[in-house]
Amino acid sequence: MNKRSDAPVGVFDSGLGGLTVMREIVRQIPDERIVYFGDTARVPYGSKSRATIIHYTEQILNFLKTKEVKAIVVACNTVSAYALEAVKDRVDVPIIGVVKPGARVAAVSTKNHKVGVIGTEATVDSGLYSEYIRHLNPKAEVFSKACPLFVPLVEEGWWHDEITTSVTERYMKELKEAGVDTLIMGCTHYPLLRSTLREVMGPEVNLVNPAYETAVELRRTLEWRDLLREEDGSEKCDRYRFYVSDASERFGRFAQSVLGFDVPAAEKINIEEF
Amino acid sequence: MNKRSDAPVGVFDSGLGGLTVMREIVRQIPDERIVYFGDTARVPYGSKSRATIIHYTEQILNFLKTKEVKAIVVACNTVSAYALEAVKDRVDVPIIGVVKPGARVAAVSTKNHKVGVIGTEATVDSGLYSEYIRHLNPKAEVFSKACPLFVPLVEEGWWHDEITTSVTERYMKELKEAGVDTLIMGCTHYPLLRSTLREVMGPEVNLVNPAYETAVELRRTLEWRDLLREEDGSEKCDRYRFYVSDASERFGRFAQSVLGFDVPAAEKINIEEF
Repeated sequence: MNKRSDAPVGVFDSGLGGLTVMREIVRQIPDERIVYFGDTARVPYGSKSRATIIHYTEQILNFLKTKEVKAIVVACNTVSAYALEAVKDRVDVPIIGVVKPGARVAAVSTKNHKVGVIGTEATVDSGLYSEYIRHLNPKAEVFSKACPLFVPLVEEGWWHDEITTSVTERYMKELKEAGVDTLIMGCTHYPLLRSTLREVMGPEVNLVNPAYETAVELRRTLEWRDLLREEDGSEKCDRYRFYVSDASERFGRFAQSVLGFDVPAAEKINIEEF
Repeated sequence: MNKRSDAPVGVFDSGLGGLTVMREIVRQIPDERIVYFGDTARVPYGSKSRATIIHYTEQILNFLKTKEVKAIVVACNTVSAYALEAVKDRVDVPIIGVVKPGARVAAVSTKNHKVGVIGTEATVDSGLYSEYIRHLNPKAEVFSKACPLFVPLVEEGWWHDEITTSVTERYMKELKEAGVDTLIMGCTHYPLLRSTLREVMGPEVNLVNPAYETAVELRRTLEWRDLLREEDGSEKCDRYRFYVSDASERFGRFAQSVLGFDVPAAEKINIEEF
């Protein structure tokens, strides 16, 4: 194994949601070391201006550089939509966002060319999923819906709950009426509501999890560059490092519930210094 | 009318919620001029550390100083709980938070000495309502409950809604079982759910709105200091000025629905420069 392939993958998000992307990476390429950064002091990014989001992203890239990462995953739909194009030339390692991989699989797998996209207001307003999908599949019609209650419902832990079902039924009404056959879960928290979305949308609708597609793309990118890390028998807790910008007990609890194993304590860093 | 009494009152919040406090001030002392600042770029404060909240509050006080305000209302439970004591000596005008006035009326009006407090996680975790209530009424038992879904439900506009009723029933279960006769709505968004809270808690429970009590305290403070402004027949839109730290269409819509009259457009300022 060359030294470079032993380097960690950097994964970052505005907060906790990116842990669902990390979960997919851990499932698909479990031998990789991962440095996760959650910008818990400045979450949520969705209400911030594009210039602010780019500035924050640059600081995070500077931080990840100090960890000598071999690749970076932008596990945040807002950053992928608003800042990725602006910052991608500032790093000399591959950088992968969640929007393109999710859009690509939706664009090619829809049969009736009607695709639904759900996300935060910022992601929906950016129109980027819609733009990518139509670029790849000009026949596609895209129906978007912001679902602002989903994040707090997930963070409350009401993943399988009648209240969550009622909220989901209301949010999905237009998309069901539009007859979408493919639905992109365009916010990193939403895959945790997968079973409720499945129940409400019915078995015939294809639920696209951009986190899964992003992990597939990361694996391929590392393969192409001969950067895949090999098993060395280390413990999971030695392979993963967590950093946050503000101390939060909730981070540990949430990380454990998403990843399904004990995680080492997150270290607080001052991201504004980077 | 002396020149000083003609000066505006500064009202600020981390975001939109403080508008319910402004509404009470407008109702009780309609002749006052008001400068409202909502820190929409950095909302919510609840997940931030105490040091960060104090730093942000100092910047906002510096901004309000440039508007030559004659008094300041901290229309934010988190700032009132975490930062007010630390910053109050930095201004030479009266500064009033929402926690003490709300706690005071609950402490003296409870008959069975069982008081409920609902708020964000940060407010509940601060324990400040509980501390003030027990200081004024050592016999009081305080039962607190964080209700993180209430803010997004209010911002979604679902003020009178069966989903909101279901969420409220679940959140209020423990407090009803505890037999509280007084309930402090300890988050500035919550008074907008008053009718649902009334329905769920029943007519015998006294719902305390700290915004109302804060406006009472502001009126008294201005009276004592001979700073009450006199009617000059100006239009409402000339009397009120709104500033935000990040552009947000939602602000105008929300302000109008809370205040009940057309509001002038909010001006965006760079709060980090203050």
